[in-house]
Amino acid sequence: MEGKRVRLWVAYDGTNYHGWQIQNNGITIESELNRALTDLLGEEVKVIGASRTDSGVHALGNVAVFDTKSPIPAEKICYAVNARLPEDIRVTRSEEVAPDWHPRKRESRKTYEYRIYCAEILQPVKRLYCHHVYRPLDLEAMRRAAGYLVGEHDFKSFCQENAQVESTVRTVYDIALEQEEDGSMLVIRVTGGGFLYNMVRIIAGTLLEVGCGRFAPEYVAEILEKKDRSAAGPTAPAKGLTLVKYEFPGEAER
Amino acid sequence: MEGKRVRLWVAYDGTNYHGWQIQNNGITIESELNRALTDLLGEEVKVIGASRTDSGVHALGNVAVFDTKSPIPAEKICYAVNARLPEDIRVTRSEEVAPDWHPRKRESRKTYEYRIYCAEILQPVKRLYCHHVYRPLDLEAMRRAAGYLVGEHDFKSFCQENAQVESTVRTVYDIALEQEEDGSMLVIRVTGGGFLYNMVRIIAGTLLEVGCGRFAPEYVAEILEKKDRSAAGPTAPAKGLTLVKYEFPGEAER
Repeated sequence: MEGKRVRLWVAYDGTNYHGWQIQNNGITIESELNRALTDLLGEEVKVIGASRTDSGVHALGNVAVFDTKSPIPAEKICYAVNARLPEDIRVTRSEEVAPDWHPRKRESRKTYEYRIYCAEILQPVKRLYCHHVYRPLDLEAMRRAAGYLVGEHDFKSFCQENAQVESTVRTVYDIALEQEEDGSMLVIRVTGGGFLYNMVRIIAGTLLEVGCGRFAPEYVAEILEKKDRSAAGPTAPAKGLTLVKYEFPGEAER
Repeated sequence: MEGKRVRLWVAYDGTNYHGWQIQNNGITIESELNRALTDLLGEEVKVIGASRTDSGVHALGNVAVFDTKSPIPAEKICYAVNARLPEDIRVTRSEEVAPDWHPRKRESRKTYEYRIYCAEILQPVKRLYCHHVYRPLDLEAMRRAAGYLVGEHDFKSFCQENAQVESTVRTVYDIALEQEEDGSMLVIRVTGGGFLYNMVRIIAGTLLEVGCGRFAPEYVAEILEKKDRSAAGPTAPAKGLTLVKYEFPGEAER
């Protein structure tokens, strides 16, 4: 039997997990997927994830691949594996890809959303999926600040220190700030070709400093120039972040 | 020191509670409020709740009152008690009311929402706040069926059997069915002067039978006439239900 490579589209509520990547101390999205797929297919499965999201970060559309010799059609694996996964992880689609298709070696376009609940008291049913800010935010100032980040830049100031990367140059295609739910939920939607470690959360934390009036919008241009993590705002909490979508140019969007 | 009666507006995520009402086996919204208020005010507090929601049911605006001799201004209690409550219960407002003001002895208008996620795979981050239905629903048929329930009727068929009530006649002011989030979330919004035990969940379960084509819309008129719980659809799961709003006629809406 020939083997095949299967791609999974994965959604999860990150609240109860120690992030994507396998850890010694605690269950992760990756360890749950490996367990469920190994159980289903009767062979040891190790998935390769596209984005190794942090503890507490949510996803609507992360991506993973694995190789299998199983005769189960790739499209059917999605339903069978969900029956073996906890309700807070769902494979939303499965399909065969080329044997050399690798999620981190493909050109891709990623969309993240950072959600900020901006009101005196945080609604209990929203508490796990957003960051809470008490004071009103200056949305127009935040939008102007975001404008400085769009394009190709060295985002060294927006990368957790000690992250080991060859280059800190990345391209942000778009940052949109939208209000939902009667204006109380601010959604910062960031689309880019790739992101550094904690980059979206540091962008959110920095825009919040602008929204509160602690940073002027034009100071964000200076932060970029400084290439120094300590110049930017704090890393906003993980629970506000959701990996919304992966797109692979040349493939039809789903 | 004169005593005063304080009204609380209470929001909660019902997931981790055995409902509103104090139970011998398990924590409830009422027991948490009593504990936090007793701790804050240094005197034994017992709240009287407006709606004793079931285990798993959520609220944005339930109402409770209690009497206190505390000198803390009624308006400030809200903030102080939240510091003593878990994050999944929030008092969104507190205020003094007349000493005889009783939440279940006042004319009131209540709005409930029943949320149904209608797609093949349930998004993990939505799983605690909606009921999941795989198959597409006939929304127009559901709207026509809902029309039969609006007005003053004997809702005996829509009340859990053995519920001890003097009369099963209630008035439903409005039932609206709206689609949110790209059409995947169906929200059934029911407003009425009062509801029987499980009434909104049985209405939702019955409209779902219509949406799936198992009941004709006009059969709902027959269900009302039968005055028999077994004629209606099943009681839809608790987690889809949210008590959205209480209004007391003659008071300004908040």
